[in-house]
Formats: sequence, C-alpha cells, structure tokens
Amino acid sequence: MHIDIITVVPGLLESPFSHSILKRAEDKGLAKIQVINLRDYAVGKKKQVDDYAFGGGAGMVMMIEPIARCIEALQKERTYDEIIYMTPDGETFDQPMANALSLHQNLLILCGHYKGIDERVREKYITKEISIGDFVLSGGEIAAAVVADAVIRLIPGVLNDETSALTDSFQDGLLAPPVYTRPANYEGMNVPEVLLSGHEAKINDWRFEASVRRTQERRPDLLNKQENGGSDTASNEK
Amino acid sequence: MHIDIITVVPGLLESPFSHSILKRAEDKGLAKIQVINLRDYAVGKKKQVDDYAFGGGAGMVMMIEPIARCIEALQKERTYDEIIYMTPDGETFDQPMANALSLHQNLLILCGHYKGIDERVREKYITKEISIGDFVLSGGEIAAAVVADAVIRLIPGVLNDETSALTDSFQDGLLAPPVYTRPANYEGMNVPEVLLSGHEAKINDWRFEASVRRTQERRPDLLNKQENGGSDTASNEK
Repeated sequence: MHIDIITVVPGLLESPFSHSILKRAEDKGLAKIQVINLRDYAVGKKKQVDDYAFGGGAGMVMMIEPIARCIEALQKERTYDEIIYMTPDGETFDQPMANALSLHQNLLILCGHYKGIDERVREKYITKEISIGDFVLSGGEIAAAVVADAVIRLIPGVLNDETSALTDSFQDGLLAPPVYTRPANYEGMNVPEVLLSGHEAKINDWRFEASVRRTQERRPDLLNKQENGGSDTASNEK
Repeated sequence: MHIDIITVVPGLLESPFSHSILKRAEDKGLAKIQVINLRDYAVGKKKQVDDYAFGGGAGMVMMIEPIARCIEALQKERTYDEIIYMTPDGETFDQPMANALSLHQNLLILCGHYKGIDERVREKYITKEISIGDFVLSGGEIAAAVVADAVIRLIPGVLNDETSALTDSFQDGLLAPPVYTRPANYEGMNVPEVLLSGHEAKINDWRFEASVRRTQERRPDLLNKQENGGSDTASNEK
C-alpha cells in the first residue's frame, strides 16, 4: 500500500511514521508513506498557501491553487483509490472503514490546517471525507496519522502475529476482555484463577463472557448494532 | 497546563509536540508536555516492560510493576487532576470532554501498546479511560497526541485569535459552514456571491443556514442532541 499525505506542516508527521509498526511496515516493504509539503506547490511571489476567508471572520483558509497543482502532479505518478480529506464534518472513522481502506493500493490524504480548505477543493478533488471523531484539532495531520496507523496495521504481515489484530476490540463487535501478565500476585491484587489454570476452553469461555460483560457495561450500543444485523460492525469480515 | 505522557515509544511523539500550535503553546508558556519513557522504570535484569498474557493468546501485555513505579515517581512531583489511560474501550472523546479537560492544571496520560496494560493498573491508578473512536491503533501514542492537541488549543491565548476556536465545528452543536478564499473564480468555480457582498448580516445568515443544512445532511444526530436539551453538546459552554 502507498499513502501520500499532503500537509503544510510536514515536520509534524516525521516521528509517527519512523517508529513502531508504521516503520516496520515500511521496512518490510508492505507500506510506503510519503509526506508531501504543500508549500512546494505554492503560487505567486509570496509562496502563499492560505489566505483570509471571503466574507471575513477568524482563521485562514487553505487556497485551491496550490492544492490543485499538488494533487494533479501526484496523479501523474499514480491513480488513487481514494482522495481523502480529513475534516471534522466528514464520515466518522471506524474499524469497518479501516478494514475497507486496508484493501486499497493507493491513498491520498489531504490534511486541512487553519480554518479548513477552500470548499471548491472538496467539490473538485475529494472522493472521501473522514472525521476521526466529534472534536476539533489544530490540523488534519494527527488525524491522518491515526488513519494511516489503523489501516496499515491490518495489512497481512505487518503485525508479528497475524491473529493479533483479529482479537482486537471492535473486530467481533465486542470490546476486548481484560488482560493480565506477571506477577500473578501484585501487592495482594490477584490475576483471575482461570487464566492460570491452563484449561484452554475455560479460558476462552471466561474471556468471551468478560468481553460481553464489558461491552454491556461500557458500550451497549455495540451489542444493539449486532442484534440489528451486524452490518454496521466488523463482525462480517472476520 | 502540564501534561505528562507515559509511553514505551517516546520517539514516536517527538515531532507532533515540536510543531504547530503545541510548540507555540509551549513557547508562550501556556502548556508543557513531557514525554516519559516507561523503560526508565523497567524492572529486573532484562529491563522488561511487557510479558506474555496469562492464559495465552497473541500479543504482549504491559506489566504493572514498571507502570506503578513510573506513576508513583511522577506523583511525587505533582498532583494530577486525572490519570488517563488511552484505550479503545474507554469513554469516547468529544468536544465537551476536550473543553472540560482544558480547565485542568495537571494531566497524566498513559499510552497502552501491544495488547494493552495489565488490568490491575486500570483498577489501581487510572481515573479516566478515553477512546478517540471505534477503531484500534497500534498504540495509544497517536491517540494521546490527539487529546493533547484538542485540549491545548482551547487554552486561552494558544490560538492567535481567541474567537477562532469558538467558530469551530461542534462548539455550537453545528458543523462549520463551507469556507472560501481567493481567487473568487477558479476555473469557472465561483465563490457564493453573498460572501463577496461585504454585507455582514447577510453573510452571517448565509453561514448559519449553511451550517444547519450541512449538519442536517451529514450529522442529523447532532441536531437531535440539541433538541433534547443540548446537555450532550458543547453549546452550553459558549
């Protein structure tokens, strides 16, 4: 998978992609992330990429011309399955969307900054608008890193153990059960005995029940989704 | 505001906090973020921070002992308003939560990695569990950066123009209206005429109507929340 990310703050994205699984995915040749500096496509003598909003008001708006030049230059290199804009009013990112995106070859992600991008960019170029949640960030960069991380870890071979991602929260419509490691007794706090029993079937039962209980307590909406056919959850994809 | 972030991958968080508004908030003395390497608190000869899960299964679990040592050392320096664990089964992060957190003085954020942390850490130390959304990341680091960014930009003085954050999506329970900047005509795509009129009242009306229309089309659930009293939205805080 190839992911191009367009940003006015390329330095911000240096470290997330040079560590942990994103780095490992690159080293294994399973994913390549390229951060593109929008300023390289700036126009005019002042090398502008943003300007005041028509109609007035606080905050700068990213101009269409540099973005158009940048996207069209990148499109000469490859065909994108999606041209994504990270924005708080986009479709809410979730595990089924991560699963779907992980099947693509080429993604282009445009990060908004300041007050957002000129609306005409959205009309002309963007095929998918994604929000990572109902909150506002100072830019789309960290949100793009969230999407890249969630998607790339699903590519087969990226995680050390391929079964690892399938036991995550949300992949079966349930939250993950509690986990424990050594020591079995920490200052009087004990690990549930069944986990030390070595009895695999009992352990699986305990974990399933703990998952269901945790989901009921914390996220009953996930259980309701499943009862309504499950099409909103990732359970069909497992 | 002071935010301490505990992680096993400190390098991952280098660049998000050294750019853009987080950097500016630090330079202005309005916020200080400290990234703490959990490995400095590792135990035993092998300097371990994680181990296999009791009961078997894929993925490593972060041990309680290093985390306990780390948190207790930090607590000698300051009292935390919240000790937060970033986890997919936590309470979903949203703008009202960001608003509330921005009023605190000291936050401690623990990033999970691998399969998560020993459940006993959650029972003993964690006062608030936050999920940034219904998807799984390879670690809590990028999620912690999301929370830090969303919270710090709300601190008065961090954004250049204090009114800027108040016109964001979600702050009045509505999505933001479309924005435009120069040129007024881009390859035949024109900016709505009212925005060029200079008539402030008409511009405000147009923006409000565009906000409502966009919210109806994309996120009718936000409008329903408001009709039900608005207690779930940030509208009361404005």
